[in-house]
Amino acid sequence: MSVAHNFIRLAGGIVLGLTTLLVNASAQTQTDPLPSWNDNAPKAAIVAFVEKVSKENSPDFIPEPERIAVFDNDGTLWVEHPMYVQPAFALDRVKAEAAAHPEWKDTQPFKAVLEGDMKALAAAGEKGLVELIMETHSDMTSDAFQKVVSEWLATARDPRFKRPYTALVYQPMLELLAYLRASGFKTFIVSGGGIEFMRPWVEQVYGVPPEQVVGSSIKTQFEMRDGVPTLFRLLQTNFIDDKSGKPVGINEHIGRRPIAAFGNSDGDLEMLQWTTIGGTTPRFGLIVHHTDADREYAYDRDAEFGRLDKALDAAAINQWTVVDMKADWKQILPEK
Amino acid sequence: MSVAHNFIRLAGGIVLGLTTLLVNASAQTQTDPLPSWNDNAPKAAIVAFVEKVSKENSPDFIPEPERIAVFDNDGTLWVEHPMYVQPAFALDRVKAEAAAHPEWKDTQPFKAVLEGDMKALAAAGEKGLVELIMETHSDMTSDAFQKVVSEWLATARDPRFKRPYTALVYQPMLELLAYLRASGFKTFIVSGGGIEFMRPWVEQVYGVPPEQVVGSSIKTQFEMRDGVPTLFRLLQTNFIDDKSGKPVGINEHIGRRPIAAFGNSDGDLEMLQWTTIGGTTPRFGLIVHHTDADREYAYDRDAEFGRLDKALDAAAINQWTVVDMKADWKQILPEK
Repeated sequence: MSVAHNFIRLAGGIVLGLTTLLVNASAQTQTDPLPSWNDNAPKAAIVAFVEKVSKENSPDFIPEPERIAVFDNDGTLWVEHPMYVQPAFALDRVKAEAAAHPEWKDTQPFKAVLEGDMKALAAAGEKGLVELIMETHSDMTSDAFQKVVSEWLATARDPRFKRPYTALVYQPMLELLAYLRASGFKTFIVSGGGIEFMRPWVEQVYGVPPEQVVGSSIKTQFEMRDGVPTLFRLLQTNFIDDKSGKPVGINEHIGRRPIAAFGNSDGDLEMLQWTTIGGTTPRFGLIVHHTDADREYAYDRDAEFGRLDKALDAAAINQWTVVDMKADWKQILPEK
Repeated sequence: MSVAHNFIRLAGGIVLGLTTLLVNASAQTQTDPLPSWNDNAPKAAIVAFVEKVSKENSPDFIPEPERIAVFDNDGTLWVEHPMYVQPAFALDRVKAEAAAHPEWKDTQPFKAVLEGDMKALAAAGEKGLVELIMETHSDMTSDAFQKVVSEWLATARDPRFKRPYTALVYQPMLELLAYLRASGFKTFIVSGGGIEFMRPWVEQVYGVPPEQVVGSSIKTQFEMRDGVPTLFRLLQTNFIDDKSGKPVGINEHIGRRPIAAFGNSDGDLEMLQWTTIGGTTPRFGLIVHHTDADREYAYDRDAEFGRLDKALDAAAINQWTVVDMKADWKQILPEK
C-alpha cells in the first residue's frame, strides 16, 4: 500500500478513530515481537540488529530499500525431516501417475516407489531422487503444476505429526518474518527447493509474495497453443539454487546484497558468506541448529537432509548467531 | 513502508498536522495523474482500467498483490534510437579497454570500433554486436561491472539531444509508472537489455527497485577469493529476456501473471500475449508507437532497433491500446 493511500484512508478515519489510533500505535511499539523466543542471546542479537539498522537516529541506520533479508526454507522455515517435503510430493506423484506410465513398473527408481521398496529407493541415491522429481515436475504447463501442488498440500499429511506440511512451519520464524517486515525489511525465500513448488503457498503461510521467492527451477518454454499463451515445463534443469548457487540466485533475482541471512545447513553457507562478509554496513547471519528430538528433530554434521557441518564451523568464525532450538525456542510448531 | 509504521508515524503527526493532512489528501485525489498525456483515447483507457481494478467497490476489483504491471525498457521507457544504449556503452568500453587488448587492433568487430569504421561494424551484424557486448560485459566481478556502468552513464551523452541517456526517458511513462504505483500496482521492468546494465540506475530514474527488474543476463559464478565472497561474470549467456523469453522471465522472476503490460516492439509481443490473453480478470496491453520524428523518432515495421510489425497487427486483434506519440503525448522528454 502506498503512503499516499494510507494518507487518504487515514484522513477519512481520523474523525472517527483518533483515540483508538493513538492507543493502538502505542500498544504496538510495546508488544514483544518474538513471543516464542526465549530471552536468550539469539533473540537479543536479532532485536539489537533490527533496532540498530531501522531506527532513524541510529549511527548504523540503513534505508528501507536496502533492508533485504533472505531465508532458506527447508529446515529453516519448515520441517525437513524425515525427508524434504518436495521428494515426498514426488513419491506421491509417481503413484498418482503410474497408470499413465506402465513402463514405470519395470524401471528404477519408479519401480521401487510403486512397490514401496525403500531399500531399492535408497540405493538409487540422490540421482534417483532427482530423476523422480524431474519426471513428476515436467511435461505439463506451469498452471497445471501449481494446481497439482496445491491439491497435494491440501490433503497430504506428515507421518509423525499428522499435520499438513504447511502447518509444519516454525512459529518463532513466522514471528521473525513478521517482525522484520514491520521493521521495514523485505523478506525473501532463497531455497534449494523448486521455485514453482513453493509459490502456490508461501504467500499465505509466510506472507512472502511469489515475486520474493528464489529457488531451483526447470526450463520452461512459451508457446501459443490454439491461440492460448502457455508456459510449458520441460524435462531440463534450469537452475540449482543451492550452495554456491544461492548467491547467484540472489544476485539474479534481488540484484542487491542482503543485510541479513537465515539458514540451517551447509547449503546455506555461501548465502551467509555473501550476505555477511565484506559489507560496508552492519550484517546479520543466523543458523537454526536442530537440537530438539522430542519436539522436532536433532541432527547436524551427519544428517542426510540438511547437513550442518561446514556452516557450523563458519558460524563460529564469522560470529553468526546459532539458534539452539531446544534452548532458544519456547514453542516450535504453531498451535493446531 | 508498512501500514503499522505509517500508523505510528501518523499518530505522532496528527496533533500537528490534521488540517494539512486533510487538505493534501483531498488535493491528491483531484490532481491529474497524467499531465503529459493529451486527453485522447489512450489516456482515457489507462485511467478507466486503473480505476476499474483498484476501486474497492468496482465489480472488476483486483487485490493489490495481484496488480502487477510490466514495462519493456528500450523504446518504451527510454529512447532506443539511433541505437540501443547498451551497444553504445559496449562501443565506448571497447575503446576504453583497447590498451589491455592489443589483439583487438587486428580482430573484427573490435577493429571496426577502434577505427570508427561503421561500415565494417554494420557488416558484423547482430552477431558482431553480441560479441562486443559479451566481451565488454564479462571477466569481472558484478560489483566492478555496476561501477563501470554508473561511471559511463554519468559522463556519456546522446549525440542528438546532448543529454545523459538517463535523461532520455519519456515523461508520460514516468507519470504512468507513478500513477500505477499510487494505485497499488507493483511495477516491473522486463527488458531484453542486460539486467545488471539496468539495475544501477533504474531505481533513481524510474522508481523501480533492482528486485523488480527482469532482463537478459550472463552467467555468474560465486567464489571465495582470499576470503572475500565474489560474484564473477563469465563469458557465457545465461538468459535472453526477449520475445518468447519475456513470459519465461516474468514467470521465473515474478511468479504470477501481470495484469498490465507496456511495450513498443515485436520483442514485446509474447509478453503482451501472456499478460492479456486468456486471463479471468481484466487485463491491459499498451504499445508505444514512435510517430514523432521532430520531437523524437518515427519508426515501426522496418526499424533495425525496436521493429514494430507483428505486435502492431496483434494490437488490433487483441484490442491493445496504441499510443501515437505525436498525437497523444503533450511532452516527450522531461524538462532539462
